[in-house]
Amino acid sequence: MADNKKMVEEITSRDVDFAKWYTDIVKKAELIEYSGVKGCMVIRPYGYAIWENIQKSLDKRFKETGHENVYMPMFIPESLLNKEKDHVVGFAPEVAWVTHGGSEELTERLCVRPTSEVLFCEHYANVVKSYRDLPKLYNQWCSVVRWEKTTRPFLRSREFLWQEGHTAHATEEEAWAETEKMLDVYADFCKEDLNMPVIKGRKTESDKFAGAVATYCIEALMHDGKALQAGTSHYFGDGFAKAFDITFTDKDNTIKHVHQTSWGVSTRLIGGIIMAHGDDNGLVLPPNVAPVQVVIIPIAQHKEGVLDKARELLERLKNAGFRVKLDDSDNAAGWKFAEYEMKGVPLRLEIGPKDIEQNQCVIVRRDNREKSFVSLDNLENEVTQTMQKFADGIYQKSLDNIKNRTYTCTTMNDIISAIDKNGDGFVKAMWCGEEACEDEVKDKTGVGSRCIPFDQGGDVPSNKCVCCGKPADKLIYWGKAY
Amino acid sequence: MADNKKMVEEITSRDVDFAKWYTDIVKKAELIEYSGVKGCMVIRPYGYAIWENIQKSLDKRFKETGHENVYMPMFIPESLLNKEKDHVVGFAPEVAWVTHGGSEELTERLCVRPTSEVLFCEHYANVVKSYRDLPKLYNQWCSVVRWEKTTRPFLRSREFLWQEGHTAHATEEEAWAETEKMLDVYADFCKEDLNMPVIKGRKTESDKFAGAVATYCIEALMHDGKALQAGTSHYFGDGFAKAFDITFTDKDNTIKHVHQTSWGVSTRLIGGIIMAHGDDNGLVLPPNVAPVQVVIIPIAQHKEGVLDKARELLERLKNAGFRVKLDDSDNAAGWKFAEYEMKGVPLRLEIGPKDIEQNQCVIVRRDNREKSFVSLDNLENEVTQTMQKFADGIYQKSLDNIKNRTYTCTTMNDIISAIDKNGDGFVKAMWCGEEACEDEVKDKTGVGSRCIPFDQGGDVPSNKCVCCGKPADKLIYWGKAY
Repeated sequence: MADNKKMVEEITSRDVDFAKWYTDIVKKAELIEYSGVKGCMVIRPYGYAIWENIQKSLDKRFKETGHENVYMPMFIPESLLNKEKDHVVGFAPEVAWVTHGGSEELTERLCVRPTSEVLFCEHYANVVKSYRDLPKLYNQWCSVVRWEKTTRPFLRSREFLWQEGHTAHATEEEAWAETEKMLDVYADFCKEDLNMPVIKGRKTESDKFAGAVATYCIEALMHDGKALQAGTSHYFGDGFAKAFDITFTDKDNTIKHVHQTSWGVSTRLIGGIIMAHGDDNGLVLPPNVAPVQVVIIPIAQHKEGVLDKARELLERLKNAGFRVKLDDSDNAAGWKFAEYEMKGVPLRLEIGPKDIEQNQCVIVRRDNREKSFVSLDNLENEVTQTMQKFADGIYQKSLDNIKNRTYTCTTMNDIISAIDKNGDGFVKAMWCGEEACEDEVKDKTGVGSRCIPFDQGGDVPSNKCVCCGKPADKLIYWGKAY
Repeated sequence: MADNKKMVEEITSRDVDFAKWYTDIVKKAELIEYSGVKGCMVIRPYGYAIWENIQKSLDKRFKETGHENVYMPMFIPESLLNKEKDHVVGFAPEVAWVTHGGSEELTERLCVRPTSEVLFCEHYANVVKSYRDLPKLYNQWCSVVRWEKTTRPFLRSREFLWQEGHTAHATEEEAWAETEKMLDVYADFCKEDLNMPVIKGRKTESDKFAGAVATYCIEALMHDGKALQAGTSHYFGDGFAKAFDITFTDKDNTIKHVHQTSWGVSTRLIGGIIMAHGDDNGLVLPPNVAPVQVVIIPIAQHKEGVLDKARELLERLKNAGFRVKLDDSDNAAGWKFAEYEMKGVPLRLEIGPKDIEQNQCVIVRRDNREKSFVSLDNLENEVTQTMQKFADGIYQKSLDNIKNRTYTCTTMNDIISAIDKNGDGFVKAMWCGEEACEDEVKDKTGVGSRCIPFDQGGDVPSNKCVCCGKPADKLIYWGKAY
C-alpha cells in the first residue's frame, strides 16, 4: 500500500483547494494536456473516450427524437454574423478572426464559429420553401471557439467540442415544444448516463442567449456548492427568421416565417462529472460513460493459474457487454489499485489464488470502497447489480449534495449568513422580476440568478422579493457558478 | 413514368459533361449546399449520413488495430508550424491565419490546422519519456483548412472533414510496418465498404508529403478515367522527432528519437464514391455506407392491405439489421422510383396488391435495374444475397473500368495516342527515377506520376524509361488526377 499512498498524496485534497484538486485530476487522470495555445487543450485518449461515450448516448437520443446530423462550415463572414443585432452584440467581442488566406489578405474577414445560428439560418433560407420542408431538425457535432480571457480545462476553454441542435418549425407551438423536449432529453441524459441530478428552469431576461426569446437550462451542483450550467435550450421565435428571411408557403398558401430553436451541450459536461462525483482519490466515473467499467487486477499473478483465470473473467465480462480491462503489468497490486481509483473506474475485480480455490472473486466499488465476495458462477449478474448500485449511489450522493446545500432565504442577510455558515450552494429566494434587484442581489451577496425553476411548488419562502420586498411571484435559484 | 423522366432529365449526362454531371449530383441528391464562404460547403443530412457510415467502419478498424482517438487544438502558433522546414514550406502558402481574438490583435498569429503533425509532435515531446510510453497510436476526427484557389465539393474544398492518424514508435521497423498496415486498412476499407478497387503504391520523391521520408497512397480510377488519390500513409523516420525533440529512454538506457507515421482519408472519399459508381440516373451507393439500403415503395398504396404489408416488411428488414425506409408519401410511384435512383439506394422493394396475393414482392437493383420476384417467406435472405450481388457488381464494374482504361506504354507517343484513342486512364510505363523525366512526361503528355505500385510484377512494358530511354527498373502508374 506504500505506492498507493504515495500516488494518492499527489492530488491536492478537495477540501483544501478545490480548484487545485480539479486541475490535479484532469492532468493526473490523463484527461487533458495543455497545448502551446492558451485556452486550447489536448484531449487525451482517456478524456476523449469519455466524450465519445457521451456522444454515442446523446446522438442516439437525438436520432430517436427525429434529428439528423449535418456539418456547417467553421467560418462565418463578418457580414453574416452582423445580420441579427442581439446575436452579434453577444458574440462579436469574443470571436477569433481570420484575416489572411495564405499570403493574401481576405476582402472580408471571417470569424471562427462561436456558435452556428447564422450559418443554419442562411442554409434554411436557401432550402426551406414549403410547409413540406418543415420541420428541419438538424444537429451538428463540432468544435467552436470563444476568445475567453480566463480559461480552465473543460469548464471554459477557447476551443471546445460540443453539439448544437438547430431546428426550424412551421408554428410557434411546435418550436416551444421542441425547446422543452430537448431540455428533457438533456436532463434525462444527465440523470441516466452521468448520474448527475439537475434543476430544469428558465434563465432570466438578462441571462438569456444573445438573440433568443427564452433560454431554458439545466443547472447542476458541484461538490463545492458552485453551480454548473450543464446545457441550454433556446426558443428563438421568428426573430432570426425575420433577420434572415426564412419563409415558407404554408398549407393555406400564405407566406410565413419559421419559428426556431437551438440547444447544446459541450465537453463542459466532463468538468461536471469530475466536480460532481470525484473525490480525494481521483475521478469517479458514471458507468455509462466510463471508458473502463471494470478493471481486473490479478493478485499474486505470478502464481500458476491466476493470469489464466483473470483472462477467462475478462472474456466473460467482455462477452456480457462490459467495457473491461485486465491490468497484467508488473506494477504492484497496490499501485494498480491507486491508479484505477485515480481514473475513476467504477468497479475493481480482484482475483487471486485463494479466490480461485473458492470459486470467487472480490469486487470493490470505487465510490465507497465497499467490498464483496462474488461467486464466479454468478459473476455477470453480480457485476450488473453492483454497477447499478454504484450508479444509484453516486446519483443519490449528488442529490443529497443539492438537498444539503439548498438554502431557502427571505432576505439578503439570510443569503449571506446561509452561505457564510454552510458554504456555497443553491439559494432559493423570491424575486420581483426587476433586473435592478437581480443585480443588487449579486452585488451584495455574491450569488447570481441561476434559473427560474419549472417546479415552482414546494416550500416557497414568501411572496416578497428577497431584495426590494415588493410582491414577487417568481421563485428563483441563485448561486455562484462555473 | 412522366415524372421519372423529368427528374432524370435534370441531371447532365455523364458522357456529355462529367464535371457538370458531378455537381448536378451533389446538389440534386442533396449531399451538399454551397455556403457564403467560397470553398466551404454545408454537408446536408444525406451526405453527412454517408460520412457517418464511413467513420463508423474506419473507426472500428482503427480501434481493432490498437489506435485511440484524441483531440488536438485547431490552432497552430506560427512558430510551431515553422519548426519542421519541409513541412512549413509545403503548408504555409495555403493556411488561414487568425490574427485577432475579439478586438485585440494577437501577439503571434495562429493558423487553422491544415494537418496536425506539429501539434502531435509537441504533445509527444511532452508525454513520451520511456520505451514504456511507446508506441503512441493516436487518431483524430476533425476538420482541416487549406486555402485552395479552385474548389469543388468533396474533392477540393477549403475546409474538409477527415481523420488523421499520428503514431510514434521505438523503432524504424515498427514505424514502417505501421505505415504499410494503415495503407492496407484503407485499401481493405475501399474494397469491402466502398466497393472501390484501388492501386497501392508509393509516391515519387517530388510528390510525397511535406516532411515525409516516404508517402504511400491508394489510387482509385473514376468513371471518366481520371485518378483519385483516396488515402495516404506517410513514414516520417525521425525527422519530426529531431525537429521537435521527441526522445525516450530505451530498454538499454540510452536516449533515442522516436520514429513516426501519419495517415489520413477525408470526405474526398464521398467524391470518389460518386465518380466511381454513379450513372446518368444519379448516385449509386455501396451498401455498407448507404444511409438507406432498401427503400420500400408501395404500389397502389390506397388499396386495402398494401400499406399494412409494406409496414410489416419495413419492420422485418429493420429487425434483420438493414437500413430501410418506407416511402408512403402521396407522390407517384414513378416519382419515387426516380428519387431513390437519384439518391443511389442499392435496392428498391415494390409491393402491391398482386404481389400480396402471391406472397411475393419485387426487388430491383439500382446498378443494373435487374428485377426479381421474391417470396416473402424468404425475404431477409433474398435481400442479403441481392445486396451482396449488387456490391460485387459495382466492385467488378469499377475493376473492369481500371482494366479497360489501363494502357501499357513504352514511349511518350504511345501515351499520347492511347489517351487520344481510349480517353483518360492509368498509363503503365517505366521510369528511370529522374525528376526531370517525370516532369517531361507530364509536360508533353499531360499525365503525372500517380504512384510506383507495390505490385511491380505482371506485364512490365520494357526495361527502359518511357522518357529518356535509359535503363529503368521502376514501373509507374501515370494519369490525370482530381
